[in-house]
Amino acid sequence: MENEYLPKIGISIGDVNGVGMEVIIKSLLNKEINKTFTPVVYGCGKVATFFKKEMGLNDFNFNIVKDISQINTKQSNMLNVWENEVKIELGQDTAVGGEYAIKSLKAAVTDLKNGKLAALVTAPINKNNVQSSVFNYKGHTDYLADEFNVGDNYAMMLVSDKLRVSLITEHVPVSEVSKNISIEKIIAKVTVINESLKKDFLIPRPIIALLGLNPHAGDNGLLGKEELEVIIPAINILKEKGIVCLGPYSADGYWANSTYTKFDCTVAMYHDQGLIPFKQLCFDDGVNFTAGLPIVRTSPDHGTAYDIANKFIANENSMRQALYTAVDIAKNRALSKAWTADFLKPNPRLSQKITNTRE
Amino acid sequence: MENEYLPKIGISIGDVNGVGMEVIIKSLLNKEINKTFTPVVYGCGKVATFFKKEMGLNDFNFNIVKDISQINTKQSNMLNVWENEVKIELGQDTAVGGEYAIKSLKAAVTDLKNGKLAALVTAPINKNNVQSSVFNYKGHTDYLADEFNVGDNYAMMLVSDKLRVSLITEHVPVSEVSKNISIEKIIAKVTVINESLKKDFLIPRPIIALLGLNPHAGDNGLLGKEELEVIIPAINILKEKGIVCLGPYSADGYWANSTYTKFDCTVAMYHDQGLIPFKQLCFDDGVNFTAGLPIVRTSPDHGTAYDIANKFIANENSMRQALYTAVDIAKNRALSKAWTADFLKPNPRLSQKITNTRE
Repeated sequence: MENEYLPKIGISIGDVNGVGMEVIIKSLLNKEINKTFTPVVYGCGKVATFFKKEMGLNDFNFNIVKDISQINTKQSNMLNVWENEVKIELGQDTAVGGEYAIKSLKAAVTDLKNGKLAALVTAPINKNNVQSSVFNYKGHTDYLADEFNVGDNYAMMLVSDKLRVSLITEHVPVSEVSKNISIEKIIAKVTVINESLKKDFLIPRPIIALLGLNPHAGDNGLLGKEELEVIIPAINILKEKGIVCLGPYSADGYWANSTYTKFDCTVAMYHDQGLIPFKQLCFDDGVNFTAGLPIVRTSPDHGTAYDIANKFIANENSMRQALYTAVDIAKNRALSKAWTADFLKPNPRLSQKITNTRE
Repeated sequence: MENEYLPKIGISIGDVNGVGMEVIIKSLLNKEINKTFTPVVYGCGKVATFFKKEMGLNDFNFNIVKDISQINTKQSNMLNVWENEVKIELGQDTAVGGEYAIKSLKAAVTDLKNGKLAALVTAPINKNNVQSSVFNYKGHTDYLADEFNVGDNYAMMLVSDKLRVSLITEHVPVSEVSKNISIEKIIAKVTVINESLKKDFLIPRPIIALLGLNPHAGDNGLLGKEELEVIIPAINILKEKGIVCLGPYSADGYWANSTYTKFDCTVAMYHDQGLIPFKQLCFDDGVNFTAGLPIVRTSPDHGTAYDIANKFIANENSMRQALYTAVDIAKNRALSKAWTADFLKPNPRLSQKITNTRE
């Protein structure tokens, strides 16, 4: 069992009518990945068969299991969360797509909670059709934050080789962004980001940039007061806590000047302020990571892409990066835990002897 | 007087403590420009002398005049708006910087109104220190819109060789963006943009993209209602008016996929949604143009840049592009006026004859 020490990565299938299963299968086709981690997809063998047929793949097979204890560590595994046939209508926004996306996600999260997975990678869901009595969240990130009881102490982080971008507010309508930003929230988020840069990315002394909220970072109060009343006071408190956090920067100039290259993470105030420049710089290899959770979770940075879901032309690179990034972060977290363990704690017997000598 | 038919381009000097005069002078150093247009800078010979000395320029001279009737069309001209010495403190935000920026701007606008200039190019002002009893605007754009009585029928447009970006709201705090967007305003702005693409850029049938306001363009109402209640109804009315306008697009995906390459202009809902990606794609050669005014006005897309104002390292490319773009738009506007004149209007005498023949 040469592979038994490889990390097990759980993968939720997302909306069966989107590009999720397609990019999962495309990523797993390369057998090289089985040398780095063991994939466990949470879905159903019948769904896999449908996609294999549609995609014309004869050589690829999942090891179908009923429970994570049965997986083959040398192969890609499909864990049957359900047994029944699911009506797949590629490119369509259906209730079925939402229902089974949540079944897959919840099964994976259960194994994650029980310590049976090293990390979770989530394929894209449709925020509309997943809404039900068992799921009332705007996306994976706030669902997981709630599921793991972290309050505001988490942060959505976009990760690539070039840069990291994190957000103070996530899937919030623009009209509600301002009222969702407070000194406390900025402190909570930046503290989480700082910790994550240390333990998930092994950066000993992170340097973080904070963008302003308003055009020209408020132009000294003329174009909005949040910089003066909320963001700058928060930065001052963070500095007192020993967190290296500079700003607020005027967002357009910041991105224009590639100022991000000088920082370990850029923190934007709202979704598009961070995601427009991130995706412009790193489309196809960006990964969405949720910092601050007790478990590791990543996802590709694209959506269900219904418009191309029956064409099988989706680029799997972001999913592949999400899988490898999950493995890297899980490894880094284990390393940092080991390294920060108190190796130098004196051996009680030895220190007793020294004390004795002194006497 | 070989140059007498060249367009006269008025240039306001902006904040004397910023990089404005530096990038103006650097642009005008190249004598080639005098073959294309005649520059008239609105300021004071003493200010020019200060900068020439600080920048170590011995060979460059302005033709100093008191009135635009006295300019030399073969040279760069400095029109003395004032005669007194002005206290220049490079890199400092001073009341003097604001006061003289407005003196320069108002003098140029007067000549513009009187038809003595083909276009106006404005160097950057500081939105804070210009505020006074004679100037209460957030920037050049809304000042000029008010000065030329165009109501909402104008649009800030960022122009480069690669793309054009226009805005529905400009220098508005994020908390007030939503309430500043209405069906009427979108129709007014897009109508202006469409007309401008035709007559200022000579695009016979413009195709315009409209971005959504909220993350993921509101995700069908889940992340904000403005797309469903305001933007889509506005697009439908614009279509009825025969304006080709598509959207609303999810902003992050739109920029990530370079969808802008398929459109003549991308219309963003607010400042950073348009300016972050524009500046990321076109820093140093972007030009700010105000569409919808009866006169032509451009400016560089950077600010006063106080932080480098005493180092003389500012890049003048955006100012140079602003000058040439002003000339191009002034020419295009004259051409489109000529071309759309009713050449085929029948000669009254001739049509009378034809009528007679029929009788």
